[in-house]
Amino acid sequence: MDNTTIKKLLESVQSGRASVEHALNQLKHLPFEDLSFAKIDHHRHMRQGIPEVIFAEGKKVQDVVRIARSMYRSSKRVLITKASKSIYTKLKMKNAVFHPLSRTIAVQGAKEQNGHILILSAGTSDIPVAEEAAVTASFLGSRAETVYDVGVAGIHRLMEAKDSLHSARVIIVVAGMEGALPSVVGGITDKPIIAVPTSVGYGTSFGGLTALLAMLNSCVPGIAVMNIDNGFGAGCLAHKINTLSPA
Amino acid sequence: MDNTTIKKLLESVQSGRASVEHALNQLKHLPFEDLSFAKIDHHRHMRQGIPEVIFAEGKKVQDVVRIARSMYRSSKRVLITKASKSIYTKLKMKNAVFHPLSRTIAVQGAKEQNGHILILSAGTSDIPVAEEAAVTASFLGSRAETVYDVGVAGIHRLMEAKDSLHSARVIIVVAGMEGALPSVVGGITDKPIIAVPTSVGYGTSFGGLTALLAMLNSCVPGIAVMNIDNGFGAGCLAHKINTLSPA
Amino acid sequence: MDNTTIKKLLESVQSGRASVEHALNQLKHLPFEDLSFAKIDHHRHMRQGIPEVIFAEGKKVQDVVRIARSMYRSSKRVLITKASKSIYTKLKMKNAVFHPLSRTIAVQGAKEQNGHILILSAGTSDIPVAEEAAVTASFLGSRAETVYDVGVAGIHRLMEAKDSLHSARVIIVVAGMEGALPSVVGGITDKPIIAVPTSVGYGTSFGGLTALLAMLNSCVPGIAVMNIDNGFGAGCLAHKINTLSPA
Amino acid sequence: MDNTTIKKLLESVQSGRASVEHALNQLKHLPFEDLSFAKIDHHRHMRQGIPEVIFAEGKKVQDVVRIARSMYRSSKRVLITKASKSIYTKLKMKNAVFHPLSRTIAVQGAKEQNGHILILSAGTSDIPVAEEAAVTASFLGSRAETVYDVGVAGIHRLMEAKDSLHSARVIIVVAGMEGALPSVVGGITDKPIIAVPTSVGYGTSFGGLTALLAMLNSCVPGIAVMNIDNGFGAGCLAHKINTLSPA
Amino acid sequence: MDNTTIKKLLESVQSGRASVEHALNQLKHLPFEDLSFAKIDHHRHMRQGIPEVIFAEGKKVQDVVRIARSMYRSSKRVLITKASKSIYTKLKMKNAVFHPLSRTIAVQGAKEQNGHILILSAGTSDIPVAEEAAVTASFLGSRAETVYDVGVAGIHRLMEAKDSLHSARVIIVVAGMEGALPSVVGGITDKPIIAVPTSVGYGTSFGGLTALLAMLNSCVPGIAVMNIDNGFGAGCLAHKINTLSPA
Amino acid sequence: MDNTTIKKLLESVQSGRASVEHALNQLKHLPFEDLSFAKIDHHRHMRQGIPEVIFAEGKKVQDVVRIARSMYRSSKRVLITKASKSIYTKLKMKNAVFHPLSRTIAVQGAKEQNGHILILSAGTSDIPVAEEAAVTASFLGSRAETVYDVGVAGIHRLMEAKDSLHSARVIIVVAGMEGALPSVVGGITDKPIIAVPTSVGYGTSFGGLTALLAMLNSCVPGIAVMNIDNGFGAGCLAHKINTLSPA
Amino acid sequence: MDNTTIKKLLESVQSGRASVEHALNQLKHLPFEDLSFAKIDHHRHMRQGIPEVIFAEGKKVQDVVRIARSMYRSSKRVLITKASKSIYTKLKMKNAVFHPLSRTIAVQGAKEQNGHILILSAGTSDIPVAEEAAVTASFLGSRAETVYDVGVAGIHRLMEAKDSLHSARVIIVVAGMEGALPSVVGGITDKPIIAVPTSVGYGTSFGGLTALLAMLNSCVPGIAVMNIDNGFGAGCLAHKINTLSPA
Amino acid sequence: MDNTTIKKLLESVQSGRASVEHALNQLKHLPFEDLSFAKIDHHRHMRQGIPEVIFAEGKKVQDVVRIARSMYRSSKRVLITKASKSIYTKLKMKNAVFHPLSRTIAVQGAKEQNGHILILSAGTSDIPVAEEAAVTASFLGSRAETVYDVGVAGIHRLMEAKDSLHSARVIIVVAGMEGALPSVVGGITDKPIIAVPTSVGYGTSFGGLTALLAMLNSCVPGIAVMNIDNGFGAGCLAHKINTLSPA
Repeated sequence: MDNTTIKKLLESVQSGRASVEHALNQLKHLPFEDLSFAKIDHHRHMRQGIPEVIFAEGKKVQDVVRIARSMYRSSKRVLITKASKSIYTKLKMKNAVFHPLSRTIAVQGAKEQNGHILILSAGTSDIPVAEEAAVTASFLGSRAETVYDVGVAGIHRLMEAKDSLHSARVIIVVAGMEGALPSVVGGITDKPIIAVPTSVGYGTSFGGLTALLAMLNSCVPGIAVMNIDNGFGAGCLAHKINTLSPA
Repeated sequence: MDNTTIKKLLESVQSGRASVEHALNQLKHLPFEDLSFAKIDHHRHMRQGIPEVIFAEGKKVQDVVRIARSMYRSSKRVLITKASKSIYTKLKMKNAVFHPLSRTIAVQGAKEQNGHILILSAGTSDIPVAEEAAVTASFLGSRAETVYDVGVAGIHRLMEAKDSLHSARVIIVVAGMEGALPSVVGGITDKPIIAVPTSVGYGTSFGGLTALLAMLNSCVPGIAVMNIDNGFGAGCLAHKINTLSPA
Repeated sequence: MDNTTIKKLLESVQSGRASVEHALNQLKHLPFEDLSFAKIDHHRHMRQGIPEVIFAEGKKVQDVVRIARSMYRSSKRVLITKASKSIYTKLKMKNAVFHPLSRTIAVQGAKEQNGHILILSAGTSDIPVAEEAAVTASFLGSRAETVYDVGVAGIHRLMEAKDSLHSARVIIVVAGMEGALPSVVGGITDKPIIAVPTSVGYGTSFGGLTALLAMLNSCVPGIAVMNIDNGFGAGCLAHKINTLSPA
Repeated sequence: MDNTTIKKLLESVQSGRASVEHALNQLKHLPFEDLSFAKIDHHRHMRQGIPEVIFAEGKKVQDVVRIARSMYRSSKRVLITKASKSIYTKLKMKNAVFHPLSRTIAVQGAKEQNGHILILSAGTSDIPVAEEAAVTASFLGSRAETVYDVGVAGIHRLMEAKDSLHSARVIIVVAGMEGALPSVVGGITDKPIIAVPTSVGYGTSFGGLTALLAMLNSCVPGIAVMNIDNGFGAGCLAHKINTLSPA
Repeated sequence: MDNTTIKKLLESVQSGRASVEHALNQLKHLPFEDLSFAKIDHHRHMRQGIPEVIFAEGKKVQDVVRIARSMYRSSKRVLITKASKSIYTKLKMKNAVFHPLSRTIAVQGAKEQNGHILILSAGTSDIPVAEEAAVTASFLGSRAETVYDVGVAGIHRLMEAKDSLHSARVIIVVAGMEGALPSVVGGITDKPIIAVPTSVGYGTSFGGLTALLAMLNSCVPGIAVMNIDNGFGAGCLAHKINTLSPA
Repeated sequence: MDNTTIKKLLESVQSGRASVEHALNQLKHLPFEDLSFAKIDHHRHMRQGIPEVIFAEGKKVQDVVRIARSMYRSSKRVLITKASKSIYTKLKMKNAVFHPLSRTIAVQGAKEQNGHILILSAGTSDIPVAEEAAVTASFLGSRAETVYDVGVAGIHRLMEAKDSLHSARVIIVVAGMEGALPSVVGGITDKPIIAVPTSVGYGTSFGGLTALLAMLNSCVPGIAVMNIDNGFGAGCLAHKINTLSPA
Repeated sequence: MDNTTIKKLLESVQSGRASVEHALNQLKHLPFEDLSFAKIDHHRHMRQGIPEVIFAEGKKVQDVVRIARSMYRSSKRVLITKASKSIYTKLKMKNAVFHPLSRTIAVQGAKEQNGHILILSAGTSDIPVAEEAAVTASFLGSRAETVYDVGVAGIHRLMEAKDSLHSARVIIVVAGMEGALPSVVGGITDKPIIAVPTSVGYGTSFGGLTALLAMLNSCVPGIAVMNIDNGFGAGCLAHKINTLSPA
Repeated sequence: MDNTTIKKLLESVQSGRASVEHALNQLKHLPFEDLSFAKIDHHRHMRQGIPEVIFAEGKKVQDVVRIARSMYRSSKRVLITKASKSIYTKLKMKNAVFHPLSRTIAVQGAKEQNGHILILSAGTSDIPVAEEAAVTASFLGSRAETVYDVGVAGIHRLMEAKDSLHSARVIIVVAGMEGALPSVVGGITDKPIIAVPTSVGYGTSFGGLTALLAMLNSCVPGIAVMNIDNGFGAGCLAHKINTLSPA
């Protein structure tokens, strides 16, 4: 249930179509519903601009399904990350879409796609994280474009994506190994850049730590850095920036 | 020299007021001027939205002054971070303003202040980094408001800043020690949040590493994280987001 | 065999009901019984206030069962942590209770439940560790109340637990990811707080290290920190504090 | 201003000696006073059981003095840790006591000393941290006893402190290097133990990290661990436990 | 082939029982035999006092067997550490003994057992590493005695082993978790102490790193520290010290 | 004394110009001269291709001078790295040249300059390390060219050095912060690349560790990585590669 | 498609055998072919001297096969590292050779073998990484010789490889555990040395980190260090150096 | 006061020369003398074989002097490590000897020098730590011989010390940087080896950590490792081994 829904409720009170008691009831029941093992926060969208999302990793399939249904009843939309095929199968919601590459399930994402978020990946192994960012941004209501495998060892490939770099409002750069791509992209554009390190690499890549450190130390000022493999977070931030109302 | 200047140059070519040769000369000489020890990149503002800035720490006073003057000649504006009083004294520019708390020198910052960036600090020791962010954002052309000492151990203080939280378009949260403030702020607002860990703390704070890790692992999705003590970076990103033209 | 049992033995010597030889024999046989592979320390309760407990992880099922029985013969009570269902099955003690969430087996815990320990968890994934703390405290003789999923990204949920915060004598706070909850709880209560970091998280959560560091660096003074996932330790300490006799 | 002061204010309202308006004024002005550079939180004692304390390290002398005076006006008591002699000299408060070993200044500590907290140090180099704990606990109103240089390489020395171990309600153990003392103490007592690692050592002691890790991994269950060199935190927690009202 | 064998060979040359050519041949063929995938160094015992030993972990069963046989042909004795039951089965040497606890296979160890090495373990989980040390020392020709589960949380147990502490010439102390036992043992004996950290523990034990650091930082001077879980190394060093000829 | 000198000595023996005794004496006295506190290895050039070099940091001025003179007597050439002005002053050798930027003193470097080594630096703060590499390579006999301040945030600057990239036989890339430059250079050239991380940066640059890790994890295969700030090592390796005789 | 192919194409244009249109077409289609999930860079050999290589780990078998075929169509040669037997089986290319030890598949490597690269391994467990280096260098066109198990604990074994050390132009040294072999080799030769740390070891070897650090800190100047287990990178660099055209 | 002194006291009791009361008094007063800030343990020599030693670093000059005098009164011998010249000056004991290289003060060390301990250093910068080991061993009563600057990059130098290697009973090897020397020495001798890493090096030597890790992971089995720069500990252990009475 987002701001629009609440606004409509209040307007119907104003116009007399709904009684104050009814509205109060609707609102009161909102805060969170106690499923005993998880307090679902139905107000989050209103407060944080991001609806409650289920991080499925490490949770039991039936628990994920139960939380997802409660969430759907209240807000009519659900996003599940790090999901498995079996969750999708058990979920049995006709609007649910399973994205296998990013292991994401989106139920009733936003209809309209606003602005333009560009998502770049350095290598092919970084694609799952990049896809998670793309699905998330799209679910929230932003138009997401992806260009993959444009890493720093073949920098001329990046140049082919110049038009996309120009038209995008926010750019997400996903890279593992030495994590140099955000710096290179940052050197040729003035758009806000969100860097996502991935756990791609071996030896001293330390599961993405090297890429993370490189991004934090970029010589390009003002790059926003996310946790390792956190495509979801990048999608959220990019959407917030993309849809910020004019000053 | 920013986009507007170049556009005007081109328009005067179009209108016949300037010859092609003159324009070419102007443009050609732009890229960077070789000071032998430092290639100053006068095009950066155009490409990255952030003018060339001088990071003074570890550089000799006379070198900083020389770079600053060359930069000023070309773009009429300079920002020097981690500066000392003696740089300011030797600089001898009448428009220069020295901000002692953040050790920043700003020469001819932006006149107009657009939008509204809110900068919060957890403790009093975090103020220098917060000030660096504020001076930077302000220099670039954003309106910056600061509210200090609203850390998580006295969370009711934060509540007093509610109106500012509401009116801001972007929020920078500066915190050392356990770095929990961005999570708390992120739980009560839907604005883009930029978190800056500081090296404030002792023992296992590891010079800001603990705060950095906490911010990267925030349970609030989509928080943009900067390097330790990088108030300048936060100011840059906040300004880019704040002044993004409508989609 | 706890202090009371020994005291009674000595009193029956004093009153003539038992011979010195008998008492000596009883006491002498106490220290520890040699099972060749593990010296079971039957005096620990007397010395440390915590009976010998079996940490089952990494031990063979039959060894755990053998140690548990020897312990039960001597003290009539046993607590097994990180236990499996198959240990419970093989144990065949009618008083044994298996707690699947925390993977704990308690045999003949304390009857009376004194004082009031409140156990909070930040997320649903932190529940197993929180449950271990609750079962331990309860086994030792403290009344334990649990409130789950009150993490820092939805801080208003915590406010609903105000009454429990008020009535508790000690508060255990269990959290993974950025580990910020203990600081927030510490900002609104004057009760002793025991913080337990969990290995919940990914990327730079480093298996709980980030939460641990955040807790050690809390801006709230005097928070007691436990090892990662150490719900058992938290339960022990909380019980010791809760049952401390008046000064 | 602590609970007693507020209670008295309310009672004088109840009895008619003070008007509601007066009381309201008094209370309203309490929360925090804005010194522009630091929000002093005069309610902290009421909420957290610990009055606002000033951590002087890294702050300017005059700032510490200004904060200390504002705090004193409101609550009639101040504790300054990591203080220098020059702060003490500039403070000019007749009730101030400077403890050089722990570099602490206490103004008007608690009169009565309740219960009994025992503070042990492993070596002579650990004494400053142990003293900080002792001064803090004493300032807050607990009776603090210290026994120093009873480290694990000469364990028979510890045995001489048996009576103190017996009579104490809480025990603080301060140790650097391998940090083994809390485990040894924990093996012979059933009192709550608070372990404070110190930065004493060299090479792989890593400024106290080794001692900290050893304490977190103690085979004695339920030891409360503090940050490195955090004698102040240990004093706070010990006092909270020591003065906990009976269940 | 050890020093004695070579000495005898040379003496038989001296006495005319062997020709120089024969001796040369015997010696020349010694250095190492090329198995193409592993140069077996048959001289090691002579040079380093420790015969070539096979570290089986990560090697294929048939490779271990092949190396073992070549080694046996040359020196009539073999020690295999981190061995599996299936290596033992495939080895088919009648003198081979499999020690399941330490996963060691010893073929024709030393007959005589000299001196006295005492091996202590802190907990029952440390026993495999302690056993590896015991089997190694015994294989090389030292008398090894083991006393297990005498950890620091129940220090009175250690006292029961006083006689063994007195009669031993070298003491190996094996401990995981906080690794405090070597310090305690070192405080009550003047024998050379070899400390072996084990990977026993969880959370911040970091697979034995905490115990290792504690041992390196012991306040008892001169403790010899081994790599994590390196019972074999401890057995070697203890044997070297134990059998050092009088000065 | 290098291979040529020895060869000449041997040839003069062969031709009868020098007696065997004289030659033997010359050779025997070569290995190393005992200065009691430092064995100077006059043969190193012959064995390793690099003459003995003095690392002055942490050594006393008079010791450096004494070693330098002994070395000069034997080989007529000396290189001192991390040197101070005062060493240069006290050295009093007429052929000595002091390079202040890299703090290097070279006495009688190679006359001829062979091949072509290109040395790139990312920023102006990386120049001292780059200069150390240049002085070293030049001293050993390679032609060294330097191009500075061509970092990744302004990649078009690098393009201006295309001709140098083309003509060089080996390329040394010096960079701090995120250490991305070697990857970018490696993407546009097929020459051997030697990457040197510098300690330039702050916060999580960890004194050059971030740059080092990035270089080790470069997506360009086969980049040679040096220790942090090790310009000297890079100069040595580049010279060895540059002067390798044809296969 | 390497430099020779392009040169021939251009020469046939020059000689009139090919039309400019045809040549343009050939060249234009080169840059990279879009397989949607991976941009294959057919120009890499020309730019970087190393043809595009497939790192198979973590990629699906069918994807590896598809990329390999596209690559083969364009350049007639493919190298696949960290490959499995099942990739080899599915690949069905008659020229493909599977090297099981190094898990490498080489299709149509270079015919001629130039120069001489020596590859040393310290132990038998380091052989897979050493083999990867050998197969890579050989595939690219260098003659590779391997000598294994010459580690530092039996240094006389290394001496037996003296002739190979003398004739080689570049030496790759592969070692795990303490990583000391490169220093020892570097002390007796003046050839360029490439050091590859391996993840062989246990406890504090930290998966190869100890060997890596030792190699970076070698007292022999100018050793080129690779990432952990990066035999492929070592092979590439050795080949580049070995085939460098004379200055 | 060592075992001999006590034995003599007891014998004079046995022979009637001393009364039991006198002896008791002497013994009773021994345990430790309370200097209020440091419990001096006069029995340590008897228990641990090492007399109480003063680690002067971080202690005030007058405190060191006071402890030293008390210690001297009781045992007639004192060793002070990490001492300064000013301690020596203030000490005013005629038997005191100041060793400036190792910053050690020895008062009345052992007269007789038994056995033979060989101390090797890799470089000249490692000498202070090696000297600390030598002075300590000599003070305790072992004959100590030193051979310096025999590091692994010039391994032929080590060979010149062959006779010393042969005659020594224990060998201490001191090395910084890559810490490879103990492995090389261990490969050519069968004596017990004690390895001491030093903080010599830069960049990724991490203040001695790299050398420490290399030593712990030596491929030579059974090397005893000390903490970084701990020459004192090495001297103690070497002496204990050297003077072990025959089995």
